[in-house]
Amino acid sequence: MKEIKAEIIAIGDELLYGQIVDTNSHWISQELNLIGVKVIRKTTVGDKRLEILSAFKEAEYRADVILITGGLGPTQDDLTKPLLAEYFNCNIVEVPEAVKAITEFFERRGREMTPLNILQGHLPALCTYVPNEVGTAPGMWFQRNNTCWMSMPGVPHEMKKLMHDFVLPKLAEVFPLPVIRHRMIKTVGIGESWLSDLISDWENSLPPHIRLAYLPSLGHVKLRLTGFGEDAQQIDKEIQKQINKVLPTIEKYVYGYDGEVLETAIGKLLKESGQTVALAESCSGGFVAHQITTVPGSSDYFQGAVVPYHNEFKTKILGVPQETLAAHGAVSEETVIAMANGVRKQFQADFGLASSGVAGPGGGSIEKPVGTVWICCSGKDFVKTKKLQLTQDRLLNIQLTSVALLNLLRICILKSSE
Amino acid sequence: MKEIKAEIIAIGDELLYGQIVDTNSHWISQELNLIGVKVIRKTTVGDKRLEILSAFKEAEYRADVILITGGLGPTQDDLTKPLLAEYFNCNIVEVPEAVKAITEFFERRGREMTPLNILQGHLPALCTYVPNEVGTAPGMWFQRNNTCWMSMPGVPHEMKKLMHDFVLPKLAEVFPLPVIRHRMIKTVGIGESWLSDLISDWENSLPPHIRLAYLPSLGHVKLRLTGFGEDAQQIDKEIQKQINKVLPTIEKYVYGYDGEVLETAIGKLLKESGQTVALAESCSGGFVAHQITTVPGSSDYFQGAVVPYHNEFKTKILGVPQETLAAHGAVSEETVIAMANGVRKQFQADFGLASSGVAGPGGGSIEKPVGTVWICCSGKDFVKTKKLQLTQDRLLNIQLTSVALLNLLRICILKSSE
Repeated sequence: MKEIKAEIIAIGDELLYGQIVDTNSHWISQELNLIGVKVIRKTTVGDKRLEILSAFKEAEYRADVILITGGLGPTQDDLTKPLLAEYFNCNIVEVPEAVKAITEFFERRGREMTPLNILQGHLPALCTYVPNEVGTAPGMWFQRNNTCWMSMPGVPHEMKKLMHDFVLPKLAEVFPLPVIRHRMIKTVGIGESWLSDLISDWENSLPPHIRLAYLPSLGHVKLRLTGFGEDAQQIDKEIQKQINKVLPTIEKYVYGYDGEVLETAIGKLLKESGQTVALAESCSGGFVAHQITTVPGSSDYFQGAVVPYHNEFKTKILGVPQETLAAHGAVSEETVIAMANGVRKQFQADFGLASSGVAGPGGGSIEKPVGTVWICCSGKDFVKTKKLQLTQDRLLNIQLTSVALLNLLRICILKSSE
Repeated sequence: MKEIKAEIIAIGDELLYGQIVDTNSHWISQELNLIGVKVIRKTTVGDKRLEILSAFKEAEYRADVILITGGLGPTQDDLTKPLLAEYFNCNIVEVPEAVKAITEFFERRGREMTPLNILQGHLPALCTYVPNEVGTAPGMWFQRNNTCWMSMPGVPHEMKKLMHDFVLPKLAEVFPLPVIRHRMIKTVGIGESWLSDLISDWENSLPPHIRLAYLPSLGHVKLRLTGFGEDAQQIDKEIQKQINKVLPTIEKYVYGYDGEVLETAIGKLLKESGQTVALAESCSGGFVAHQITTVPGSSDYFQGAVVPYHNEFKTKILGVPQETLAAHGAVSEETVIAMANGVRKQFQADFGLASSGVAGPGGGSIEKPVGTVWICCSGKDFVKTKKLQLTQDRLLNIQLTSVALLNLLRICILKSSE
């Protein structure tokens, strides 16, 4: 079966100047990958005629599917539409259906249209108009020889809706798609090299149509298994067999699979055991609460959090004894234990989590340099603490503290159910 | 002066499969841009020999500077180093200095080395070894004809250190760099089309060597002014003149310039006026606290936060009357006012902020559908509330609520100092 190759072209000076992060290409890659279309390249070019035209030409030479994002705004710096018309050698014409949809879009929102918005309903004559229900720039689909083109706005939720409603079903209709399957094993608390050493025998024994990749990110390493073949069920079965084979070696580091993140895995553990958690976040400043509450349904097990940024509130709200603070300081094992116990009682939770540290860049001392963090998880009949020695970077320290705190909770929940 | 053109090549299947977001290219773009090197293209390719070699070849044809990230890990799926050796037609040889640095790196961390790590000290014979002080994969610098190449690890903080310590100074040494200057005007609380309408006369009057771009993001629109020329001071002056010209029209939406974000702008306002803030975050779940506390020195004006995820804690910790909750519900103007006042008093702050809403996907009703959010800012002698009608997306609702809440605080601080 012929492999269907895709190229993603992101257009916009702001992407080259580094003023915004292109999250679209990342999301599109994931979606294409799931339907067996292989992204072979991502290209980013600026708002420059020749650059854009040459990217079109190169992509047409390489790819069967070309997905373009950006450069469709109503403002004067947006070039994608006129250049597509130039590349496909056709005029831009009014598409009454598109103008109507844009007009209705503004009516629904109770907003007034500008003349620039109306012009967004004028499109290259050779394209198929694809309605954008959540924005003003329409999608444009082109087919020439054996290549399919789709131009979409750069606004993420508009692009995503066009992809789901139109592009993905359309591609499945046009191409006979091969089968590529992925599984992801998610680990926390072990570095890439160590993990690699631990599983090298297994890695070397993988069959050629199953590939392994290490994807490290902040405090986590993901193991991606990719299988190629013709029968999805068969590939899935083989991948699962490989997972079962490696799992005993790395079980204690594995918190989940595929799209699962640490906070959803913890949510599941808490829900299943009918237990709850509350947070006292000094060093992590609310980030753990944010991560937990991004999970739908987290109110079932998340009681609440306190961010006591000054010592008096650690005492007043969480009941940390003034003597503890005076004797050991805010960044100490004793204080973090009192915080965890205090917040657990205050919020009537089964688990109390606490962090206290020197996030930086200020506030360090010889004894407690920037990056020194104490974390604690407490329950009715146990207390577990850990001292972390992190980096000089404030945001990184907040993020690493959060991962460590969530992992500590995960370990404590698992222990409590043994 | 010849324009120095750069291309960024990111290598890794994980980038094409969409399993991680490439933030490196974005950061590199910003840094190159600041020294006047123009990024003309970003290319992402997978861990495939031919794809990588063809990306090298194309880039060499287009660019003066080629920066490569990724594919340097100790594991078997990393190809960058052998392919650079192949492309430059040379052997990989042991570099004792590099092996020594790697060995010392592990010693410093008290960790054991694996044989794979030692091999990371073997490099293509034609490259200049560039020490990586914060990781195990060395940087590699090549110069051929008039093109400079640098290969760096994909781990962000390692890449950044190599860029700052070596690449940026080296580029400034090799090339006579042109002058490109940027300023960014940051706005909040107005959409792109409206802003464009408001300033269209000014936009049309800009001289040709000053370009304007609209960069919309969640609840914000940034206006980027880019000036080209030979004299940095002169360009800066001209850009500033243009800013002064447009400012009266948009002043109430402008919270800052350039790298300033809403939370740093607010921090500055609070610091200057010697005032403090405390948060009661129900709907926003700790995200505003997180944003505020990412700012170094935020403990000067941030007193703390409570995330009272259940009504009983709204009453117990923040003193929201049970009758208010019973009569109006948690998502109501009355409750959000009581929360803001409660947290302000509890934390002895000048401003109390509160959010309460239906973040979704569950919990909606006909009267209060998903996306209904009340926010409040209270002070000693005022209360300001706002009802938001947001989206169906939980994370988006949390983020948009946070922007709106921070903007409400900004407006209240400005009012209080009038």
